[in-house]
Amino acid sequence: MVDTYGELNSDKSNAILVCHAFSGSHHAAGKLDNDAKSGWWDELIGPDKAIDTNKFFVVSPNNLGGCFGSTGPISICPENNEVYGKNFPNITVLDWVNSQEMLLSKLGISSWACVLGGSLGGMQALQWTITFPGKVKRAAVIAAAAKASSQNIALNEVGRESIRHDTNFYGGDYLKNDTFPKDGLKTARMLAHITYLSEDNMNKRFGRKIQDIESRVDELVDYEVENYLQYKGNKFSEAFDANTYILMTRAMDGFDPAKDFNNELQEALKNVTAKLLIIGFKSDWLFPPERGKEMQIAAMQSGINSSYLELDGQQGHDSFLFTNERYKKNLEAFLGS
Amino acid sequence: MVDTYGELNSDKSNAILVCHAFSGSHHAAGKLDNDAKSGWWDELIGPDKAIDTNKFFVVSPNNLGGCFGSTGPISICPENNEVYGKNFPNITVLDWVNSQEMLLSKLGISSWACVLGGSLGGMQALQWTITFPGKVKRAAVIAAAAKASSQNIALNEVGRESIRHDTNFYGGDYLKNDTFPKDGLKTARMLAHITYLSEDNMNKRFGRKIQDIESRVDELVDYEVENYLQYKGNKFSEAFDANTYILMTRAMDGFDPAKDFNNELQEALKNVTAKLLIIGFKSDWLFPPERGKEMQIAAMQSGINSSYLELDGQQGHDSFLFTNERYKKNLEAFLGS
Repeated sequence: MVDTYGELNSDKSNAILVCHAFSGSHHAAGKLDNDAKSGWWDELIGPDKAIDTNKFFVVSPNNLGGCFGSTGPISICPENNEVYGKNFPNITVLDWVNSQEMLLSKLGISSWACVLGGSLGGMQALQWTITFPGKVKRAAVIAAAAKASSQNIALNEVGRESIRHDTNFYGGDYLKNDTFPKDGLKTARMLAHITYLSEDNMNKRFGRKIQDIESRVDELVDYEVENYLQYKGNKFSEAFDANTYILMTRAMDGFDPAKDFNNELQEALKNVTAKLLIIGFKSDWLFPPERGKEMQIAAMQSGINSSYLELDGQQGHDSFLFTNERYKKNLEAFLGS
Repeated sequence: MVDTYGELNSDKSNAILVCHAFSGSHHAAGKLDNDAKSGWWDELIGPDKAIDTNKFFVVSPNNLGGCFGSTGPISICPENNEVYGKNFPNITVLDWVNSQEMLLSKLGISSWACVLGGSLGGMQALQWTITFPGKVKRAAVIAAAAKASSQNIALNEVGRESIRHDTNFYGGDYLKNDTFPKDGLKTARMLAHITYLSEDNMNKRFGRKIQDIESRVDELVDYEVENYLQYKGNKFSEAFDANTYILMTRAMDGFDPAKDFNNELQEALKNVTAKLLIIGFKSDWLFPPERGKEMQIAAMQSGINSSYLELDGQQGHDSFLFTNERYKKNLEAFLGS
């Protein structure tokens, strides 16, 4: 599925591709139909917002392999009329970019005015500049990295381990067994959620406060932060799919466009023609600012028109989701450049 | 159980208490009896080492509630001849310090020349200075914090969640059911292990290297870092006890000596007479250097003789376990001061 916001202009020069992150979807802005909440980038996409839909035609597709509107592990395989489940093919960031290029072609547009996204969405933006240099004029790579670190992989593996050892997982065949590894998925998400927040922000928000007994989601909860994670983990585990979780974390772990260029990112970037804007957030410890600086250095070595912006970002990795004056001003200037 | 190293001198002025961390034990140095490996602080304790057993009598007790030699959840409750299991009482850092004070008294020693430890061991050292100011002359608080942060609690909660949802956990009654929540404990340890290492160190050691198929511990493993975590998690889950894991993480989460002093650490420290040495490691993200600096500032505000030392520490939180010239020189100088 694809959402769009704004209007395509007559010379088709104002199309922006927005790439979603791990648990996002095509629903990037506003409230559509019966949506309970606004899209994941509603703070940034809309009339007079950083990504101004008065000026731009914003295209927001759903990533292949997902569980919120694209063909993925919960879909029926047409070959055998069974649910894909664990047999859904491995997927990569490049696969998404290739499918997005097919969408571009289908729309009859020659190039994106900009491709942008945060986190796993930023990885897609970077891949776009490398794979289709003629078809992207600008790319904003936000709160992302040119490859997953050893620690990123390790944290994802703990989440996968938790899912795989849920007795309801059945080696990935849970749907065929009419069940679901809810507990394992919940634990995986609780961990991932911690990596999206900053330590400072958690201290300010929850600190060491004891949870009111009346509003505990579980009797084993002592601290507010435990209650919050229990609540968030539970909610996520009721909406997301476990095989998809494994598939998507594998895609993130596998991202490494420099791999085919002797592990030299500047080599991978040597044919890039897009202007790059790389944004890192100080409080992000999942893809810390150092990852952004590494990309900027490689871009400079490749002679690309690139700039690096470091923002404070109070919300850790999730900072890319929230607007503020400096973030907005820089994105606007970049899109209008 | 208690191990000792070195000899108590005639005026009983050279006794040092070493407090172990989360999964440590009384076995701090050397190899005793059939020990497969050396004690956890073998790099620092011994003749001519930082904690020189030619000069000091080192006392290393096992923390109450543990599963490596003290009464804990795997012990038999004398009241009903059943294993304690989940019914073992909650335990706190203060409980350990109180039991260590009984040991001091039993040894007929009036005061420790020094109390020291890393991580949860450093918390005990800090608590000693507050609770028994007359009975400790020096305290070294290493890679620790004056309280667990919201993020610390959150990460521990993910580990506990993983254990509690293992179908073999039986609400903590697994021993009565002749089983053991090995998978849940393994996942908890995999996560904890990541928090003990630094991101840089993981990148240097494992990077994004693919695991040899021949030496994979599990067929689902792709990367070396996954293999390493699988191996470490497995090994730990065969040696540790799940109820003890929950008990010990709760003790760490609950540590907050300032709580009874209007949340003012300098108030908690106002009667401290011991000299303090606080050590933080740059690459430690579990108890980062900021936590050490906070203690140092509170100590200065209380007028305590205290110094703060920041070391590079290549191994993240685990850096406290490994000696190097600067670490050794500073500890030696402090112990001889």
